[in-house]
Amino acid sequence: MDKWPKDVGILALELYIPSLYVDQAELEDYDGVSSGKYTIGLGQQKMGFCTDREDINSLCLTVVQKLMENYNIKPQDIGRLEVGTETIIDKSKSVKTVLMQLFEPFGVTDIEGVDTTNACYGGTAALINAISWIESSYWNGRYALVVTADIAVYAKGSARPTGGAGSVAMLLGPNAPLVFDRGLRATYVKHAYDFYKPDLTSEYPVVDGKLSIQCYLSALDICYGLYKKKVVEKQNTTVNLNEFDAVIFHTPYCKLVQKSVGRLAFNDFLDNSDNYPELEKFKKVKLEESYFDRDVEKAFVQASKEAFTKKTQPSLLMAAQVGNMYTSSLYGGLVSLLINKKPSELIGNKIVLFSYGSGLAASMFSITVNNNSDSLQNIITNLNDIKTRLEQRQKIEPKKFEASLELRQETSHKAPYEPVSSIDSFFPGTYYLVKVDEMFRRFYNRVPLLTNGYS
Amino acid sequence: MDKWPKDVGILALELYIPSLYVDQAELEDYDGVSSGKYTIGLGQQKMGFCTDREDINSLCLTVVQKLMENYNIKPQDIGRLEVGTETIIDKSKSVKTVLMQLFEPFGVTDIEGVDTTNACYGGTAALINAISWIESSYWNGRYALVVTADIAVYAKGSARPTGGAGSVAMLLGPNAPLVFDRGLRATYVKHAYDFYKPDLTSEYPVVDGKLSIQCYLSALDICYGLYKKKVVEKQNTTVNLNEFDAVIFHTPYCKLVQKSVGRLAFNDFLDNSDNYPELEKFKKVKLEESYFDRDVEKAFVQASKEAFTKKTQPSLLMAAQVGNMYTSSLYGGLVSLLINKKPSELIGNKIVLFSYGSGLAASMFSITVNNNSDSLQNIITNLNDIKTRLEQRQKIEPKKFEASLELRQETSHKAPYEPVSSIDSFFPGTYYLVKVDEMFRRFYNRVPLLTNGYS
Repeated sequence: MDKWPKDVGILALELYIPSLYVDQAELEDYDGVSSGKYTIGLGQQKMGFCTDREDINSLCLTVVQKLMENYNIKPQDIGRLEVGTETIIDKSKSVKTVLMQLFEPFGVTDIEGVDTTNACYGGTAALINAISWIESSYWNGRYALVVTADIAVYAKGSARPTGGAGSVAMLLGPNAPLVFDRGLRATYVKHAYDFYKPDLTSEYPVVDGKLSIQCYLSALDICYGLYKKKVVEKQNTTVNLNEFDAVIFHTPYCKLVQKSVGRLAFNDFLDNSDNYPELEKFKKVKLEESYFDRDVEKAFVQASKEAFTKKTQPSLLMAAQVGNMYTSSLYGGLVSLLINKKPSELIGNKIVLFSYGSGLAASMFSITVNNNSDSLQNIITNLNDIKTRLEQRQKIEPKKFEASLELRQETSHKAPYEPVSSIDSFFPGTYYLVKVDEMFRRFYNRVPLLTNGYS
Repeated sequence: MDKWPKDVGILALELYIPSLYVDQAELEDYDGVSSGKYTIGLGQQKMGFCTDREDINSLCLTVVQKLMENYNIKPQDIGRLEVGTETIIDKSKSVKTVLMQLFEPFGVTDIEGVDTTNACYGGTAALINAISWIESSYWNGRYALVVTADIAVYAKGSARPTGGAGSVAMLLGPNAPLVFDRGLRATYVKHAYDFYKPDLTSEYPVVDGKLSIQCYLSALDICYGLYKKKVVEKQNTTVNLNEFDAVIFHTPYCKLVQKSVGRLAFNDFLDNSDNYPELEKFKKVKLEESYFDRDVEKAFVQASKEAFTKKTQPSLLMAAQVGNMYTSSLYGGLVSLLINKKPSELIGNKIVLFSYGSGLAASMFSITVNNNSDSLQNIITNLNDIKTRLEQRQKIEPKKFEASLELRQETSHKAPYEPVSSIDSFFPGTYYLVKVDEMFRRFYNRVPLLTNGYS
């Protein structure tokens, strides 16, 4: 008998994406870069973005309320609520406290958890905390709700097409269809200045591009090695890429993820060269010397091409169509995977997830899809409208997109302020900023739901 | 038999305070306010502060390294490290990653946890997460280290004397001398704009003073009510102020805490007027209508005077001598209590703690002091030099203090920057900022330890 509740995992999943996007091919043209630089070089198709009508609070309000409504969850059912974000608009007041507006009218105020931050890893930290809470003596039988949200914007230049925006809410509890594998979590944390946000007046990060790739890949190597070691310890068996049904990555841009699958293959090969006998000549290459070795990269991307197509490509829909959602990127990947599969294809699957946040903190962990097919079907049905929503979005020309980002840069920390952008394109149920008063207090409103439900 | 490890709690405790302070009586004089306004009205004696040589990273580096050295903890012994703070110098990179510099040289990088934020409550959130981790299936037998740290500074005006600075590190694990009472944790979270930091360019908060007091007292009422209810549920007995050996509060200023003890007495009275039969006339007063009722306040402060002196006063040493340390305030209170008592006086004690963070999030929970007297003696011995350190600090005249704050306000987010203040007064083992380079990267150095140990 387990000491802890059985099958702790994800019971419900909700995603919110902005209603506006810019086309990456049009952006290539507008930026005067070579055709294919963003679409093929980075693997990005469209980039979602927010006007001055949305901020971190509104993104979280929208996705939480949406999950509660779509899954018929009562405020009383929630015992923990935690937000992971790096979109900071207040150094002190947590987004979590703003979300309490959805619970207070029902007399529900005893909800633990606040905000957790480390770049794109904050959501995973919140998830880990929520899992621990459910396994702890303090658990009161209620659900935990983990919210990841970010607005990812970059200064004009080569990093700008790697932006995005979105939020994910995950309902956690026992007897879940998506079960976290106990003990199989490998973490790597290190002091690095690869991507950080020391200019507090700006939404834009400081990025050391090359270091960032090196940090990401080295964290992937180390987490994968440790994850494998834990599998041996816990299950007395070895694993490699072949054993996984799906591998999902934090996705700054899609091309990096294709390289990452190759990287896992390279790790498998160094563990045991029988895995890729045709690549024998790379046997003496060291992990830490090969982050920018094009021959290694090319060979193992090629060798793992089928694995990438089968195990990872289905999880890249949001990353390619919306962009990097920072803390939500990995969980947008999970959503993408689920809506690209039938429940029957997913039952019994082993899904490996790699979470990375610059600075840096990274974890690799895994999910086993339970044969609890009703709940799984319920999640997939509820996420079903996302493909429609992707299509219903409004395309904005690059010039207007740029103007919108300039407006954000000028006004995102301003008070008093009244947003000027239209809300006409917003999806039903979207919260939006009405005003920031002279005391910096923020006020929101919500686009009405359609009477027949969503979208 | 318990399902979870036995006696999870605090195994080691370390506190760091700045080496400089301003005298509150001198500050009264300098500010031209009536004598006693800060010293008697607020109950504050001295206020610790940091020059441009210290920031949130240095405060945390100092206290963590100090704990590791003083208690002979090896980097390999730590499995989780989490920081609670509202002193934000980067929106993305966590302080936790900076602390990894103390672990990486020993090959230790698999340490979970990042940073947690909600005003003065962030440290308690980190503590709660660490306790849950130790009780979870993912616990690997290693210790959790929880760090709380802040630099509390206010714009010139009535709130300025309520500043302070400091950091606390707590080592958590099973078989602890200070054991968290299982299931006895009452939480209250609500959307409020009582104190927040929306101006990201400044270290100063926006404060609605009156609302802040109302929020604090209402959170105290609600947490106390819920805590009592949980005691009934878990232990089938009722409790009131008489049952507690010590009651420790988050302490914005000492006077508020004296009122808070009165408030608990008032709660006890409303539950059962037999508790204070002489105050029968207040029987119809409602909690939510009495936050600013001077008659109620006066009567119950008077009625609980002995309780305050016995149960709370011993925990106010740091609050009176250093000031509000935000996330560290409550745990500085615990340190104060421990160094003001002999182990024999503490064994078997029930200590109630009230954590409050504006915005707002609050929890009340309790600690039972185990009869594990060796470990308790070890903690007290290690904290023993704090009274000496309080005395060894250097007094700075108000004018220079003000200039130092102005310098912080101008430079705390500046890059490149080289701090100009002296480190001559710094205690041995203190980390300090050497420079911020043009990429905002921060570099630190450490004041050498004395060869015969600390202080």
